[in-house]
Parts: sequence; C-alpha cells; structure tokens
Amino acid sequence: MKNATFKFELQATHGRARAGVFHTPHGAFQTPVFAPVGTQATVKAVTPAQLLELQASLVLANTYHLYLRPGDSLIAEMGGLHRFMNWIGPTLTDSGGFQVYSLAENRSVDEDGVTFKNHLDGSIHRFTPEVAIAIQENLGADIIMAFDECAPPYDREYTENALSRTHRWAERCLSAKTRTDQALFGIVQGGVFPDLRTRSAEFIRRLDFPGNAIGGLSVGETKAEMYAVLEVVDSILPEDKPRYLMGVGAPEDLVNCVLRGVDIFDCVLPTRLARHNAALTRYQRLNLVNSVYARDPQPIDPTCSCYTCQNYSRAYIRHLITAKEMLSATLISIHNLYVLINLTIDMRQAILKGRFDAFVQDFMERAKTGQ
Amino acid sequence: MKNATFKFELQATHGRARAGVFHTPHGAFQTPVFAPVGTQATVKAVTPAQLLELQASLVLANTYHLYLRPGDSLIAEMGGLHRFMNWIGPTLTDSGGFQVYSLAENRSVDEDGVTFKNHLDGSIHRFTPEVAIAIQENLGADIIMAFDECAPPYDREYTENALSRTHRWAERCLSAKTRTDQALFGIVQGGVFPDLRTRSAEFIRRLDFPGNAIGGLSVGETKAEMYAVLEVVDSILPEDKPRYLMGVGAPEDLVNCVLRGVDIFDCVLPTRLARHNAALTRYQRLNLVNSVYARDPQPIDPTCSCYTCQNYSRAYIRHLITAKEMLSATLISIHNLYVLINLTIDMRQAILKGRFDAFVQDFMERAKTGQ
Repeated sequence: MKNATFKFELQATHGRARAGVFHTPHGAFQTPVFAPVGTQATVKAVTPAQLLELQASLVLANTYHLYLRPGDSLIAEMGGLHRFMNWIGPTLTDSGGFQVYSLAENRSVDEDGVTFKNHLDGSIHRFTPEVAIAIQENLGADIIMAFDECAPPYDREYTENALSRTHRWAERCLSAKTRTDQALFGIVQGGVFPDLRTRSAEFIRRLDFPGNAIGGLSVGETKAEMYAVLEVVDSILPEDKPRYLMGVGAPEDLVNCVLRGVDIFDCVLPTRLARHNAALTRYQRLNLVNSVYARDPQPIDPTCSCYTCQNYSRAYIRHLITAKEMLSATLISIHNLYVLINLTIDMRQAILKGRFDAFVQDFMERAKTGQ
Repeated sequence: MKNATFKFELQATHGRARAGVFHTPHGAFQTPVFAPVGTQATVKAVTPAQLLELQASLVLANTYHLYLRPGDSLIAEMGGLHRFMNWIGPTLTDSGGFQVYSLAENRSVDEDGVTFKNHLDGSIHRFTPEVAIAIQENLGADIIMAFDECAPPYDREYTENALSRTHRWAERCLSAKTRTDQALFGIVQGGVFPDLRTRSAEFIRRLDFPGNAIGGLSVGETKAEMYAVLEVVDSILPEDKPRYLMGVGAPEDLVNCVLRGVDIFDCVLPTRLARHNAALTRYQRLNLVNSVYARDPQPIDPTCSCYTCQNYSRAYIRHLITAKEMLSATLISIHNLYVLINLTIDMRQAILKGRFDAFVQDFMERAKTGQ
C-alpha cells in the first residue's frame, strides 16, 4: 500500500552528509535529527512540554515494552500512542526485534517468527512479522519498523542465515501493513560483514520503503567497523529516502555518522546517563556527584542555552543528587537531550551553508581537548 | 530591626475569612494562599517552571534539612535560596523546631536550645534561637520563622513549660535578627489548651511580628480541637498581620481554617500523596494504581484545568505507575498542587465578592457526596 502522506525532501548535501525534511501526518521533522526515546510511552523524567521546549521533533517508543505493558490494544482504545503519551509531533516505534534479542529471557527463532519469554513475568509470547505490524498499527506511530532479527555481529554463518530470514520478514511486513497513515521503514542487517551488508542494502533498496534503517550496530563492534558498514550501506541505499541508524547517540557518533550519510538517530544514552548523574557536553562527560562540584556555581556547561544551564548550578544539581531528589534526573535529562538535539541542528545548518567539513574539523579538534 | 519592605493589605473580610496581599522583596502573594513545600530546596518531582504555570506564589523550604544538607553556608555562597533553587517568587523557611521534634533521632531541650542527633548520619547538632536565625539568614528566604518547641499536644504540664521557653526564644529570635529584607514571623503554641493558646497568642501579639503563625496543630489532635484552637487564636492575633497555619493542607482543612481566619497554609500532602499514586480532588481521593482506571480515558478530574488533566488520561497515569515511570509523580504532583492552589484562589474570589458563606455551604455539601 502506498504512503501518500510521507515525503522526504533532500535539501542539501555536503560530501555524503545530508540535510532534509521528512513529512508525516503529525508534522515534519528536519534532518539530521536526534529522537529522544520514550521506551514505555514516556521519555523518562521529562514531560512532553519540556521536550517541545528543547526542540525535540521525532520521539520514539518501544513496541516490545508497550505490547507487554499496558498492551497495544489498550493504547489503541485510548486513541493511539500520540494521544496516550500526549506527544503531538511525529513518532516512531521500533519493531521489537532488537528488544527480543537484548531483553527477553530466552528466545527461539524459526522461519515464521520468534518465541520468547518476556523479561517482566517470564510468560511466553510470539512475534512474527505480521504480529509486529499489527501491534505497531495498534500503537499508531507515524513511522513503524520492519520486524528483523538482530544477530550477534561476528558470527558469519548465523548472520547469513538470519539475514535471509530478515529479508523474507521485510517482504511479509510490507504485505501485512494495512494503514496508509504510517510509513514502514526497512532495516538493513548483516553484522560487520561488508558483503552481507551490501547484499542486505541491495535487497532492502529493491523493496522501496519510504525510509531505511541500519540495524545491528552499536552492539559490540568497533567504531571502525561501524563506520565501514555505514560507508558500504550509504553507497547503496537510495538518496531520496531518509536513513535511520538505530540506537546510536553519543555526540562523536552523531558527527561521524552524519558524515557517512545518516539522517535519523535515536538512543537512550542521554536520559540513561542523566539517571546515573552524568551530564554530556559535546566533547566530554561530567559526573555531577563528584565532590569537586559541591560549591561550583557554574551551570553544567556555561556555553549551553538549555533550561537547566540557564537556571541551575552544578552545586544545586549535585545537592539534588545527594539528597536523592527526582529533579536531578529531570534537569540532567533536559540538558543531555538538548546537547544532542542542538548538535543535530548545528550540523544541519553547517550542511545547508556548505561548511560541514569545517564543522567536523572543529568538532574533532575540540573533542581531543574536551572543550 | 524594622521591616520596611513587608506590608500586609487586608482587602476584604467575610465573617472571619480574609482576603489580602502580602508584599515581599520577591514579589507579593495573595491570600488565602497554599504554599508548596520544597523540603530540600525542590518541590519534589516538579520544576519551578511548572510551579509558575500552576500559579504557585509562596514556596517553602526546610531549615533543618538544608542546614544538614547541603549546608546553609553553601546556599549563601551560591547566592541564597531563591537563586539556588531557581524560585523567583516569595519563599519561606521554617525554623527547624518542628523537624527537631518530628525527625531527629533524639533530642534534649534546655533553656538555651535543643541538642539533637540528626536523622541522616546520627551526628550531634545544636539549635538555639540565635542559630536558627543565623541559618535562616544564610538561606535568605523572604519570610523566616521564630525557633519554637512543638510539644506533645495533650501534656499540659510539659506544654506549659515549653510555652514559656518558646516565648523567651521568640524574643531572642527578634534580637538575633540582622537582615531587614526578611520578615520574621512569631509562632503561637500551647497544645490543645485554650487558656495556654490564649496566653501564647497574647504574648506573641505583643512582640509585633509582621506575621504570626499557629504551630503545633495537625500533630494528633482532633479536627474539633484544631478548630477550637483557631477560634481562640483568631480573636487575639492582630487583624492587620497575616496568620499562617503550619503544616495543614487537606482541601476540607483549607476551607474550615480560612473560615476561622487563616491566611497562609503549607503542607507536603499534595506531593507526598502523588508519590504514593493518590490524586486529590476537592472532595475525594483517587488511588490511581487501582485496576478500575486501567482503561479509563478520563482525566483525573474532568472539571480540572491543570496541565495533567488537560492532557493525560487516568489510563496513562496508571500505566506510568505500574511501569514505575517517574513522570507519574510529576503529573500527579502538578494536579494535586493545582487543586489546593486553585481552591485558595476560588476562596479568595468568594471572599472578595462577599459570597464566601455560600461557597462554604456548597463545598460542605459536595464533600458529603464526594463530588
């Protein structure tokens, strides 16, 4: 079924880096974009009003988690994910494939799907491509993902078998899809093996999804291997469709991956670090529980324009942490998300103005010194 | 030392109920007022921006807690309480007297002050009237409180001795005070005994504080006893100064106590209930973890205009609770605080318009049916 409502406009390129806009039924988002992750239909410790204020556009939620709790039929009954979680902008749900791989207590994969024991109560569940699409249609995100298998990155024989299966599942997802107000993205797999990634990118390209994702990265491979995979895939995936690198979100990764043609990112890193008292800047991390910050009147980053840095000292945030006050997670999450979103906005401007090379050079030099 | 910057305007009365405005160096607040409690320099789970949105005006913080952690000298060094916690409006700190009574592991009271073991690490500390004022001057709130002793409400002999000491401490607090940009309020004690309350109110009245508090209530006595004390005290305390009932905050208490001449309230109830999944309305409480709310598309209160009720269903909030997401505490806290603040705003309007009797009658009738 065709997706009339979705359109990607490629506005500028600089080398392989791209700036674009993706239109969805819940508004457009500009790329490169960093999507905050709302695993359980909430970006942890942050309200949607705060997300809007820090210029978040695309927000993610997890099919695996929401299927288990509160259940996708309940969310459908409540008017769908947007209304349920009060996010008026574009949303994306993953397919659950990665969570079955990383969270389920055990799983057995066959040609038709995956049977797994869920991590909450140990009960047995089964996902097939058709089930994953039906759940995502109940959730109702603007962008939904093909059901894939994330294989261990270095096991060539397993990866090769899993890859063929993932390709057949991609075709089944396309056939299973019934809603026209959702864009189904395909996922390229293939571990760290350039020839398998090539085969996968060519296969997925032929299915003509409105967007394509690169899965199975940031799961244990080296940065060099990740970049090599991106370079292979980038040369094959269509230029007129957005490319989404799943689960990647450190600042240096965003820069290195935009440089290699990626448009969309998501990662739990900024909010997870926040709950562990770590603040990001573009070039370093601060552990705010450290006693050197006890009487430090500076904001987390004196150059940052986020709500947290405009209003709170490191001393105050450290006090909140030691006093076990929830506000610390909120304030650090707001800052960390802002850092990543602001970085993608700056990269976009640099691409549009034809000076992304200089941006990258400057970034890499500052990253060496941490400022 | 005189407080030139503080002024209470009594704008209207209806029976004993009063509507007024209290001016402070950080702006005025209108009364009756409910003050959210930021025990450790943060109203738990809520940002100052959210407090402003729900029309909070006066915010409380606790001397005992902040003295212990992070320390009042640190807060002074960071520019004082307002700047430290980013609350631009009026603030109030209690004296620590009640926390020494309710939280410290053990305490010994003598004529000069109280020695206590703190609840965090068991170390020994000592508060005297002079120490309590010095700490509150370091914190820098607009309104500070005299150091008092909160005695067990039914022990007449103990209460009588404690009361004389508390009166001598009130005089010492006045002498110890050095800042002119803080208003020191006196505190009436005396347990449930009308004659002791009379004696205390007359003594405190003579000291001519810019505001007066009623302490030692809501600590185990009956509602009838609380109201009786208020009626005694109300007839003695000066009408041109605000009256602050410490630690009281259930909706029906606010109505009954405004009816008996109280202007200022504070209580941890709304935020504490929120962290235990209980939502307030004016007339009842909802335990949102209850499975009857699992598929309930209604907001907590369909008649409520708060951010939470405008945007979220009971089903969503219950999902957040069962999924252990912090956002539940934030959303319920916003709602609960709004209910109390909105109630004081409505009472104020009723007093200004001369229809507070009708307001009370309507409230009491609805309270019987829970709606």
